[in-house]
Amino acid sequence: MARDRDWFESTFERVKNWGRWGPDDERGALNLLTADRTAAAAAGVRTGRTVSCALDLATTAAPDNPRPAEHFMITAGDCRGDNPLPGFEQSTDFFGVACHGMAFTHIDALCHIFVDGAMYNGVAADEVSSHGARRNSIMAAASGICGRGVLLDIPRLRGVEWLDPAHRVTIAELEEAEAALGVTVGPGDVLLVNTGRSRWRRAEGPGIIARGMAGLDAECVPWLRDRDVAVLGSDGISDGLGGEAVAGWAMPIHQCVICAMGVHLLDNVDLVALAEACVEEQRWSFLLTVAPLRLLGGTGCVVNPVAVF
Amino acid sequence: MARDRDWFESTFERVKNWGRWGPDDERGALNLLTADRTAAAAAGVRTGRTVSCALDLATTAAPDNPRPAEHFMITAGDCRGDNPLPGFEQSTDFFGVACHGMAFTHIDALCHIFVDGAMYNGVAADEVSSHGARRNSIMAAASGICGRGVLLDIPRLRGVEWLDPAHRVTIAELEEAEAALGVTVGPGDVLLVNTGRSRWRRAEGPGIIARGMAGLDAECVPWLRDRDVAVLGSDGISDGLGGEAVAGWAMPIHQCVICAMGVHLLDNVDLVALAEACVEEQRWSFLLTVAPLRLLGGTGCVVNPVAVF
Amino acid sequence: MARDRDWFESTFERVKNWGRWGPDDERGALNLLTADRTAAAAAGVRTGRTVSCALDLATTAAPDNPRPAEHFMITAGDCRGDNPLPGFEQSTDFFGVACHGMAFTHIDALCHIFVDGAMYNGVAADEVSSHGARRNSIMAAASGICGRGVLLDIPRLRGVEWLDPAHRVTIAELEEAEAALGVTVGPGDVLLVNTGRSRWRRAEGPGIIARGMAGLDAECVPWLRDRDVAVLGSDGISDGLGGEAVAGWAMPIHQCVICAMGVHLLDNVDLVALAEACVEEQRWSFLLTVAPLRLLGGTGCVVNPVAVF
Amino acid sequence: MARDRDWFESTFERVKNWGRWGPDDERGALNLLTADRTAAAAAGVRTGRTVSCALDLATTAAPDNPRPAEHFMITAGDCRGDNPLPGFEQSTDFFGVACHGMAFTHIDALCHIFVDGAMYNGVAADEVSSHGARRNSIMAAASGICGRGVLLDIPRLRGVEWLDPAHRVTIAELEEAEAALGVTVGPGDVLLVNTGRSRWRRAEGPGIIARGMAGLDAECVPWLRDRDVAVLGSDGISDGLGGEAVAGWAMPIHQCVICAMGVHLLDNVDLVALAEACVEEQRWSFLLTVAPLRLLGGTGCVVNPVAVF
Repeated sequence: MARDRDWFESTFERVKNWGRWGPDDERGALNLLTADRTAAAAAGVRTGRTVSCALDLATTAAPDNPRPAEHFMITAGDCRGDNPLPGFEQSTDFFGVACHGMAFTHIDALCHIFVDGAMYNGVAADEVSSHGARRNSIMAAASGICGRGVLLDIPRLRGVEWLDPAHRVTIAELEEAEAALGVTVGPGDVLLVNTGRSRWRRAEGPGIIARGMAGLDAECVPWLRDRDVAVLGSDGISDGLGGEAVAGWAMPIHQCVICAMGVHLLDNVDLVALAEACVEEQRWSFLLTVAPLRLLGGTGCVVNPVAVF
Repeated sequence: MARDRDWFESTFERVKNWGRWGPDDERGALNLLTADRTAAAAAGVRTGRTVSCALDLATTAAPDNPRPAEHFMITAGDCRGDNPLPGFEQSTDFFGVACHGMAFTHIDALCHIFVDGAMYNGVAADEVSSHGARRNSIMAAASGICGRGVLLDIPRLRGVEWLDPAHRVTIAELEEAEAALGVTVGPGDVLLVNTGRSRWRRAEGPGIIARGMAGLDAECVPWLRDRDVAVLGSDGISDGLGGEAVAGWAMPIHQCVICAMGVHLLDNVDLVALAEACVEEQRWSFLLTVAPLRLLGGTGCVVNPVAVF
Repeated sequence: MARDRDWFESTFERVKNWGRWGPDDERGALNLLTADRTAAAAAGVRTGRTVSCALDLATTAAPDNPRPAEHFMITAGDCRGDNPLPGFEQSTDFFGVACHGMAFTHIDALCHIFVDGAMYNGVAADEVSSHGARRNSIMAAASGICGRGVLLDIPRLRGVEWLDPAHRVTIAELEEAEAALGVTVGPGDVLLVNTGRSRWRRAEGPGIIARGMAGLDAECVPWLRDRDVAVLGSDGISDGLGGEAVAGWAMPIHQCVICAMGVHLLDNVDLVALAEACVEEQRWSFLLTVAPLRLLGGTGCVVNPVAVF
Repeated sequence: MARDRDWFESTFERVKNWGRWGPDDERGALNLLTADRTAAAAAGVRTGRTVSCALDLATTAAPDNPRPAEHFMITAGDCRGDNPLPGFEQSTDFFGVACHGMAFTHIDALCHIFVDGAMYNGVAADEVSSHGARRNSIMAAASGICGRGVLLDIPRLRGVEWLDPAHRVTIAELEEAEAALGVTVGPGDVLLVNTGRSRWRRAEGPGIIARGMAGLDAECVPWLRDRDVAVLGSDGISDGLGGEAVAGWAMPIHQCVICAMGVHLLDNVDLVALAEACVEEQRWSFLLTVAPLRLLGGTGCVVNPVAVF
């Protein structure tokens, strides 16, 4: 389906949630994850099995990790001789991370993306200064995202280990997956779309980044708006990489979903263990908790999303 | 109640969980938080109200924060002219933190504390090198801590805003609080003890650190072992600060609870909003999720614990 | 001598070097330190005694160091077991610093200060984005500052260990010092003004920052312009701290000297050893080398200025 | 010339300077750079031309820079609205670096290398803990290295742009270069050996690291000891990379020169501009100043060596 600049511009306007929750709103689609929906998601817990959906914090440079996280020891087991507190032996450390890298499981705040100089709800990009974001920071999610998670496992649907990096998931595939897995994506859900990237990376290593990355076809944007998801996530970055870009729309999912719809994105989620657990539990929905750190002015945060069945 | 070095040494031995879950175990008391208990905690959710129990990540130096977290912008709204990806406008940042500071809500891994050169389960301190912890790292909690949280609100019990910094909470007070709040701490619970420190700090500022800090009396250590809590937390650091120390036992709670019992600690938890919510919901137990980052070899992690009522 | 906003504004205009070395110049008064002057300074070396003029890189928080430098070991002597290169045993580390703190010996680049939105030579402040300075960065000094250093030791002149923090050094004192020490400040010199702050801090600790800091009286600005110094430095920050500020002129020396004159500043230089060496060598001029790191877009750099007699 | 493990072990013993300057010495061969030699080097200055011998601080990942330096703005030109000091407009930044990378011009401290668990002068490796080096840190060079630099330009001698990466510079070549350039390396000199790597990297990019790197043949070790150089440097790392290693002697130059001889090494020096200046000035010796930061416990430091002709 051919899509040009005009199509993107009209789509961006069509899916806009600006003003929907008030002119000063900074939570965007998180407003759809009401307390009732959180309670309903908790009520769905059966076995109590918990699954981490995060990659290990990558501290080593790789083709998909040019800016590794830092991890330094401040005090290790070798420092008892330097002990400032006699008789108190401890080890402590420091870590630092630029969370938006392709190797880090992270959440994107609504200040992460601008289109034509504006963020979600029409806030000017200049509200993000070198002192941080004055508006739309990750603090909008500081009280925690706790709701129903739904995994649409496209490789399982296709009977493959992972999708071809050129593949763009269509609306038809999302709905086919819903039918096959017996789940329907609805308002306030956290939708996770598995492309098999995590498994592929494990099998063939970080060099695969050079071969592109599967993602959602741009046609899914209006569908996501119709379903009113609260959060969208993927083991990739939801946007496909490596296809031809449309001028001004280098990452249409990021641009339309974050900026127009006010939907927080979860990037580089590790879905290998989760997909296996879904098969074993024979359910593709679960209680999902994402708890970003309270980073004032932050553009996002590394997170460790935890699913409970 | 007078307590000397001998008392601590015999107590340390008495509460030891070394070997209880096998010679190679690194999860310690997290083994008590079974899937059944996680499911039961989720089943207890009623209103779906979520409460964050973390302090804002402190990036400014203060008497209780000599090593502030770092937060730097990599790309702000002023960089569209420097845009490497034409038409894609974004803001990104970096943060770094030495999590064990007194101003950071964090979890202590079982490698954080050594007594006489040994960690939990008898692992040698030298297993923590300048490359990180080879054993007992925070990865033991990587799949997430999701269970029943219980708040024992001692200032409320005493009818004060916050406890005197010299105060040491006794077993009698913990049990009085249980009775008054209609909750009983049991195996696999995440026990949070409110001392009012967060409220005090808000009222009088970070300088209060110089005046000491309320904590648990050392007599509580065997009680915690008897109740078999999975995790212990406080708005302070569980240990009281400012009293007279016993040689070799500068922080008896840390030393006995982490090292002997294998209980992860939550330090500097913000309990102001949680305590208010408990009163409004008239319940002092809730579903609590703590999801440390997957920091290989880490001695702990900043976290944003999320309670759901 | 009373000085109001008008006086500062006219002085700022009077001492301006904008355009003096061309409209695109970024070196400012470094242009005055010609190769001939460098050679003359080297020819002045007699005994070959070298003196470091830097403070130790402060990694501990203090009243004058709210943002300590970081120093972390990557590999220490405890890591031979983790050795990636068999038989090759090494130790390595990481350090990081926000150089403009009051505890760091550093050089200020010409992009460090703006007045009314403009830097030296009329460059717009917006040329410094969150990606760094596109103009007037520390790279202007990347080839090294190597010339004649002159120390004007005011405490010695006054017969005191250190100046009162409220003291503002006058033109008369500078010229008195020249006469007493037998040296005349001239074009292309690196002028170092000793206020005794380093000695005072060593005697009474970092808390002295709360009591103010001696500096140059604003009347010295035109004098510095007349003498055509290449660089100005002090054991303080050249500006006095703690006096009453004139609206819009919080740091007149920084604002007039860096922004109008294009003179790089050396702040928090350790002059204790240098002052002693000058007495022993009975000379108050020497070869001084300052070699900032090649930090693209940098606003300054920590340095270790080295004097040779 | 075949060299086995025995040869290295006997060479290591033969060139040892342990004890030469006393059992507690930490300066090693820097003791050879006396004040007289510093004065003589300054007296050799003619034109006053200064040349920086450092690479730009590399903040971007590359095959030879897996751990890039960090450079973050704290305040940029966009923050005047957030100004804590009314009327004072400034830009400030932070940088951090793990200096021993292959892309950073740095000096190696004598605690950087251990052989069989010992550093220079027989100090135990365990003196370097996760708190830093208690002995042999970079502070040994804190007063600055200021002496005669000598460039032996091997590519120029061979009439090539750069040496083949498999090339190992021999004693014969060093002495041929001395004769051709009219300079003799002597006690207390800072010897810089040009292999053309900097020029090669500029021509073909950082990927060349995969093809190896020219360096000094191990036979040069005794020669360096006989000439009594104070410091050794190269545009590579003095050791060749990519040849077959002898068990236990992965980097013989580093191991013998730093550990046995107590000679500080300068790695990844940018010699392109210096080599050109030498030709234009028709001299291959100059005043060289290297001023490491005063990093307590540091294993080395990034530096910007400055040559003056």
